[in-house]
Amino acid sequence: MDWYIVGLIAAVLTTFGFVPQILKMRKTKSVNDVSLPMLYQYALGVFLWALYGMHLGDYIIIGANIVSFITLVATIALYYHYGKKPEK
Amino acid sequence: MDWYIVGLIAAVLTTFGFVPQILKMRKTKSVNDVSLPMLYQYALGVFLWALYGMHLGDYIIIGANIVSFITLVATIALYYHYGKKPEK
Repeated sequence: MDWYIVGLIAAVLTTFGFVPQILKMRKTKSVNDVSLPMLYQYALGVFLWALYGMHLGDYIIIGANIVSFITLVATIALYYHYGKKPEK
Repeated sequence: MDWYIVGLIAAVLTTFGFVPQILKMRKTKSVNDVSLPMLYQYALGVFLWALYGMHLGDYIIIGANIVSFITLVATIALYYHYGKKPEK
C-alpha cells in the first residue's frame, strides 16, 4: 500500500472537513445549532498540529493543518456574520 | 521547547474538538444547522489519519485520531437522534 496516498486522502478530507459546514451556513444563513467553542477549539488545535508537523518534518501534516486553520477562520467569520449576538 | 507537549495539546484539542458540539446538541436538542456531510467527512478523515499514524509509528497521531473517530460516531448518532428526517 502506498502510505503517501492514505495520508493524502486523510489530509484532504480533514483539511476541507469544515467546507460542508461553510456551504450549509451560506445556504441556510443560520448557525444557531453550531457550537462556537468547537470552532475555536479546532482552530487552536490544528494550529498546534501544524507546529508539531514542522517538528516531525512531515509536509502532509503541516500543509493539511495550515489550510484547515484557514477554513476554520472562514467558518468562524461566517458564524459571526450569520449568528445572533451572544447573550451577555 | 518540548515538542511532545505541543503535540499533546494539539491532540487533546482536536481529539475532543467535537465535544462542545455534542454538549450543544444535548442542550438544544436541535441539529438543523449542523452539516451531516461534515461529520461523515471528518469521521472518514480521522480514521485514515489513524492509519497514517500507524505508518509513521507516531502514537500521538494514532491515539488522537482513534478517540476523535469515536467522538464523531457519537456526534453522528446524536445528529440522527435529534435531527428531523432527511428530505427524500
